[in-house]
Amino acid sequence: MNAELIAVGTELLLGGTANLDAQIISEKLSELGINVYYHTVVGDNDARVKAAVEIAKSRADIIITTGGLGPTYDDMTKQTVAAAFGKELVRFADEEKRLRDWFSAPGYKFTENNLRQADFPEGCTILANPIGTAPGCAFESGGKHVVMLPGPPRECSRMLYEQAVPYLKKISGVGEIVSRNIHIYGMGESAVEDKLRDYMLELTNPTLAPYAKTGEVQLRVTAKAATREEAEKMMTPVIERVKAVLGDVIYGIDVKSLENAALLALKAKNLTLSSAESVTGGLIAKRLTDIPGSSAVFKGGVVSYSDEAKIALLGVSADTLDKYGAVSSETAREMALGAKAKLGTDFAVATTGNAGPDGEPLGLVYVAIATPDGNADVRELKMGHWDRDRIRTMAAHQAFDLVLKAAR
Amino acid sequence: MNAELIAVGTELLLGGTANLDAQIISEKLSELGINVYYHTVVGDNDARVKAAVEIAKSRADIIITTGGLGPTYDDMTKQTVAAAFGKELVRFADEEKRLRDWFSAPGYKFTENNLRQADFPEGCTILANPIGTAPGCAFESGGKHVVMLPGPPRECSRMLYEQAVPYLKKISGVGEIVSRNIHIYGMGESAVEDKLRDYMLELTNPTLAPYAKTGEVQLRVTAKAATREEAEKMMTPVIERVKAVLGDVIYGIDVKSLENAALLALKAKNLTLSSAESVTGGLIAKRLTDIPGSSAVFKGGVVSYSDEAKIALLGVSADTLDKYGAVSSETAREMALGAKAKLGTDFAVATTGNAGPDGEPLGLVYVAIATPDGNADVRELKMGHWDRDRIRTMAAHQAFDLVLKAAR
Repeated sequence: MNAELIAVGTELLLGGTANLDAQIISEKLSELGINVYYHTVVGDNDARVKAAVEIAKSRADIIITTGGLGPTYDDMTKQTVAAAFGKELVRFADEEKRLRDWFSAPGYKFTENNLRQADFPEGCTILANPIGTAPGCAFESGGKHVVMLPGPPRECSRMLYEQAVPYLKKISGVGEIVSRNIHIYGMGESAVEDKLRDYMLELTNPTLAPYAKTGEVQLRVTAKAATREEAEKMMTPVIERVKAVLGDVIYGIDVKSLENAALLALKAKNLTLSSAESVTGGLIAKRLTDIPGSSAVFKGGVVSYSDEAKIALLGVSADTLDKYGAVSSETAREMALGAKAKLGTDFAVATTGNAGPDGEPLGLVYVAIATPDGNADVRELKMGHWDRDRIRTMAAHQAFDLVLKAAR
Repeated sequence: MNAELIAVGTELLLGGTANLDAQIISEKLSELGINVYYHTVVGDNDARVKAAVEIAKSRADIIITTGGLGPTYDDMTKQTVAAAFGKELVRFADEEKRLRDWFSAPGYKFTENNLRQADFPEGCTILANPIGTAPGCAFESGGKHVVMLPGPPRECSRMLYEQAVPYLKKISGVGEIVSRNIHIYGMGESAVEDKLRDYMLELTNPTLAPYAKTGEVQLRVTAKAATREEAEKMMTPVIERVKAVLGDVIYGIDVKSLENAALLALKAKNLTLSSAESVTGGLIAKRLTDIPGSSAVFKGGVVSYSDEAKIALLGVSADTLDKYGAVSSETAREMALGAKAKLGTDFAVATTGNAGPDGEPLGLVYVAIATPDGNADVRELKMGHWDRDRIRTMAAHQAFDLVLKAAR
């Protein structure tokens, strides 16, 4: 079966936001083994939405729309799509009741136009929206399947995972599809592909496919089977083979990110971490504290964006700054040791460098880790060919990689 | 004139990345007053790219493609699009020379397939790519205009701004189009619209349109005129009217973000800033140091993710933590005063709170600012209905808003 996505919303055509829903849905359909051949974005215009649906009908087995399910006059997806399939919208009594209940809460005001969110194509399956007023729906007509999801990415992704995926599994008759992500740091996508190309081509179920992220690579293993257990079992030898080929550039399976893997590694040994950031300016702390529960491991950090801060908050010596400069291996080492001492943690990471746009040498960065034995290791990075964002991101990656390797 | 975008790349259909190029180009075309009616994403498949181009040809005056300009076999955009317009690809001698020069640099290896990047539709205009090997191109055929840009967003945006925009201005005969962005914080999109709806509807040139971002609203004023000066002059009364209607929720014109506005306000008065972050965990420092040149104002900060860090690095009193708890107005105040004193800055901001997922009361946040007179102001926020990311983002917004208001 193949699917195609239609996002309805003029704001997408004005560049107010990227089509994140398409990414979220495509990633999930890829896991389900459903091919996606086209994405379309169209504005809140009845004729143009209709034209987009007609084209999709002629090409796809499954049409998934996002957006245009709300209460206002420019929310027209349900009526336009239903009409394209010769269906009427009818009011669903349960949904009307739910809406009236929702708006009876203190602080809410019910207006009649909200009832448009209780109107759906006759005979459809309602997809509940636990975090918004607009439910989605799904129906089949003439051998084509239609699934309508809300536009806001939070609502879209939740409805997709909880409601649409079971529906899609059923209609595509795929049984259970299970994926595992192998996370790789320290080897580029083309090198990973070189080492595994023949094996990837040879595999059909499970499949093995690479995805590049900034500075990282993921390999996704996907198996289809009658049961979840069977699918898991089929993946094990593939993961083992990949581990044998790639070795220790693999930093985890299904761990989300380098910072997650680093936190988990420390947590497992009941170890703590702090940070001292210059060039990354808080990015390391921010990425660690993005993770719920990080406070069990990460105790805090210092953003020392001036020599004075390095001296006052981290105890870096003025002599070191004078003699070697703020961007030096020596300063990075003293920053890491200073954070470890001040915050009383087992490990501390530090960064110092120049991410531009001015100053010389551009892209020179030192990343240090202070370890429980009282020593510190420093890595030197030369990233003069990259821009400010990427230099900062890669410096933070390196810090997490140092933690991971030290915590093992 | 109306345009439509076709992104070519199987990775987009697999959900590896969102279609950022479409957002970048749409935003720019909207500024130019060129309507965009559709975006399409299609994979690296000759027949499907051809089908997408044929559909776009039947609907649009301008077709802008992104991606598929590289040297490998699955880079097929130029040849497929050229064929759809009955054109042949020919080798451009200047481009061949440029490529051979590029690959003669140390560390590069020339392979013959790279010469595919010197092949273009006959008679086209080359769009230079200063940061990559694949140039773009533009041509006109039978009254339709085609512009081809590279896929990587950095390359795409730079070629768009530097090369494609002048080309599009010429072919659409629009003269000069100039936009100004009015940035609003502290009033929701619907309230802004309520106050300005009639005025927005009445305007035709300049136009006035709202855009919502997380916790913020932007109003974009766009004027078309024969000269830039004339367009600027036409916008002045519109901006004045909006200022008169909305008052001090406007925090700047063309300032990019709250943190940019806050930094600029401090820089103008030669004032400095530091931070003490608990709930935001480095996000404030990270957003400030994302801005090139921020070190002139922002001297550093502390991420105090534990009581110990609050005491050791900021001098918060153990009594205060005992009596009022870490999430309290009193702790926020002492954190701000502590950062100001430790880092010797004119202002300091602090955040403490609970962004979840556990703990009570969820979403309670205190944001404080320490001011040059030695006092501190604290704001209490209740955001229990939001998720962790949004709570942290909004807490940082509030901190920047406090700085802005204090620095004025």
